[in-house]
Amino acid sequence: MIGGGQLARMTHQAAIALGQTLRVLAVSADEPAAQVSPAVVLGSHTDLAALREVAAGASALTFDHEHVPTELLEALVADGVNVAPPPSALVHAQDKLVMRRRLAELGAPVPRYREVASAADLDAIDELAAEVGGGLVVKASRGGYDGKGVTLTDDVAQARAAAEGYLADGVAVLVEEKVAMRRELAALVARSPFGQGAAWPVVHTVQEDGICVEVIAPAARLDAGVATAAEQLALRIADELGVVGVLAVELFETVDGALVVNELAMRPHNSGHWTMDGATTSQFEQHLRAVLDYPLGSTAPLAPVTVMANVLGAPTQPEMTMDERLHHLFGRLPEARVHLYGKGERPGRKIGHVNIVGAPGGSLDDEDYVADVRERAVRAAHWLSHAEWTDGWSGHE
Amino acid sequence: MIGGGQLARMTHQAAIALGQTLRVLAVSADEPAAQVSPAVVLGSHTDLAALREVAAGASALTFDHEHVPTELLEALVADGVNVAPPPSALVHAQDKLVMRRRLAELGAPVPRYREVASAADLDAIDELAAEVGGGLVVKASRGGYDGKGVTLTDDVAQARAAAEGYLADGVAVLVEEKVAMRRELAALVARSPFGQGAAWPVVHTVQEDGICVEVIAPAARLDAGVATAAEQLALRIADELGVVGVLAVELFETVDGALVVNELAMRPHNSGHWTMDGATTSQFEQHLRAVLDYPLGSTAPLAPVTVMANVLGAPTQPEMTMDERLHHLFGRLPEARVHLYGKGERPGRKIGHVNIVGAPGGSLDDEDYVADVRERAVRAAHWLSHAEWTDGWSGHE
Repeated sequence: MIGGGQLARMTHQAAIALGQTLRVLAVSADEPAAQVSPAVVLGSHTDLAALREVAAGASALTFDHEHVPTELLEALVADGVNVAPPPSALVHAQDKLVMRRRLAELGAPVPRYREVASAADLDAIDELAAEVGGGLVVKASRGGYDGKGVTLTDDVAQARAAAEGYLADGVAVLVEEKVAMRRELAALVARSPFGQGAAWPVVHTVQEDGICVEVIAPAARLDAGVATAAEQLALRIADELGVVGVLAVELFETVDGALVVNELAMRPHNSGHWTMDGATTSQFEQHLRAVLDYPLGSTAPLAPVTVMANVLGAPTQPEMTMDERLHHLFGRLPEARVHLYGKGERPGRKIGHVNIVGAPGGSLDDEDYVADVRERAVRAAHWLSHAEWTDGWSGHE
Repeated sequence: MIGGGQLARMTHQAAIALGQTLRVLAVSADEPAAQVSPAVVLGSHTDLAALREVAAGASALTFDHEHVPTELLEALVADGVNVAPPPSALVHAQDKLVMRRRLAELGAPVPRYREVASAADLDAIDELAAEVGGGLVVKASRGGYDGKGVTLTDDVAQARAAAEGYLADGVAVLVEEKVAMRRELAALVARSPFGQGAAWPVVHTVQEDGICVEVIAPAARLDAGVATAAEQLALRIADELGVVGVLAVELFETVDGALVVNELAMRPHNSGHWTMDGATTSQFEQHLRAVLDYPLGSTAPLAPVTVMANVLGAPTQPEMTMDERLHHLFGRLPEARVHLYGKGERPGRKIGHVNIVGAPGGSLDDEDYVADVRERAVRAAHWLSHAEWTDGWSGHE
């Protein structure tokens, strides 16, 4: 696996059960996956020699991020390496313009958009603003993550300035209408080279400042027809693009209840962390099964609802150590499923997540039941990052 | 962790989620845990220098087997190492005579027994045979596992011969009545140094030739009072013995519905493998939480029933590779949770296990529901070891 982050770390956990060992290409020995796997190659994902070293003898080569240059992947394919997903698919997760064009061609629901490849195209921004009559989203076509490389604005001049900034960095720009949405959803699927597809239930993802903070799985109060349409859409995209592995399709549910595709990721994804404790097969095992061309596992949920909350580094690191915080959390919420990534704390950085699996017998239609599971997940994650209880508990009551 | 077997391998999986790395003392680099952990010390568990090397700087030292000599553990304690469970507790899992005496002192239900420390005690076997009027179980007090070191016989002369054999190996002998039993049960609990205890539901363990082959969790058709008594008994033993970590109490349910304690293990145990997929907290995470003195996790089951079946090496290794067998298994049973240990196949050797988690909405009281989950687990495990479907399926129907 290229990349030694938390996705590789959790993929190694899944690999162990399958009798496999995950070899990772990490930048340094203290990266999350490099801490826990015995098979680590240190090097850069932009260095072909390092890529060749980690790929040597492996059944398949896969990714915990999208940032390996396509030409290097093509060189590996020419070497005979089984690159999964193949570069022809992966490019749609690497380049937002390629993705948007292809989805539009496929007739998938996408926001109205314009391409700004150079300064000569900047007037297209004014044109789009006039057409949509609302806010715009300006995106660097490559290199963004967790809200970086994305500018939201209602002001055309600001949109042009943002686009000029990305162009100055040598990156083409995608400008889209800001969709009037009810909430964000994600449809997570996997596809094997054999062509088998499997979909987990569609989830509701809650974002703050462009970072996923909470996932409710399945999404509550979602029209059954819309849920099915989202799953079918994701399976169809996986098939049309020739994806191998997990594909996350980030969606907007519009104020009218329609679906619009926002982004694609071709790897285990934050919106699928709930599957580690809440589904029969986790996204990490499923990714491996797909990449190794095993038949895919059951995606059935284990509970009426599972909620995942990210542990994001607090603005100021608490005095209390993480070990002490964990101690208090386990004392208060013995049902919390904690996943820590072995990362240093920095403001806003994803350092872990917590899953709360709803007790048997509840119902996704019961608002109090869902609210209780959400409250516990968010309370646990906030405690781990901030050493503060969101409900004001002092421990002395 | 002392020992690089499958228990250490699965403990490493659990350690990853807690932000920890498990350092293991393994005999060779191809042992199950040594394959997947980056922190491996190669050496023997009877070599104090190796024990000291693996313990250096660790928060705690724990075990995947019972075979470290007590005097070496005492030396580590004298060094200041946090040995968990402490040698004063562990001796009860190392020496069946010490265990049996102590349990009898505590008033726990035990079989009638005699100690045979030397040839001078052999007549006690005739005495016990006359008293119980039935079969006898002759056990080496130390060193046995998976049925080894145990002789069952209805013949007094054979019992004496077996005892003489163990004595000739320099091992004292425990001779017990063969309990007329309905089935075997196991009560799995954990205890932290703080004194907190937590019990999973009592399970039914199915043994063949002294090896656990199947676990039904919870045990079906078990009187609620007996189940509670078993849990309470295990928690009390853990407390009285000062256990730190997981304690498995192997029990007989007699034909009269009473409980008798058979054996103790102070580590994650085969009877708890179902918790990896069927309980909120797995035995491996719980063992770490106890050893690290964290508050213990919820032991609530995730389903009405979960069945574990061991994958035991077949008498003749199939021509089909394990990879191909896995492929076919996943194709037929997408809900099977497979855990492979990375071990070579030898007849009767534990090389993995399969968990099947019962679908929501079923009931432990529904015999057909439980039988279906059992059938799938056993079918999956048998397929993985033998490349034969127990239901005769040919794949062409």
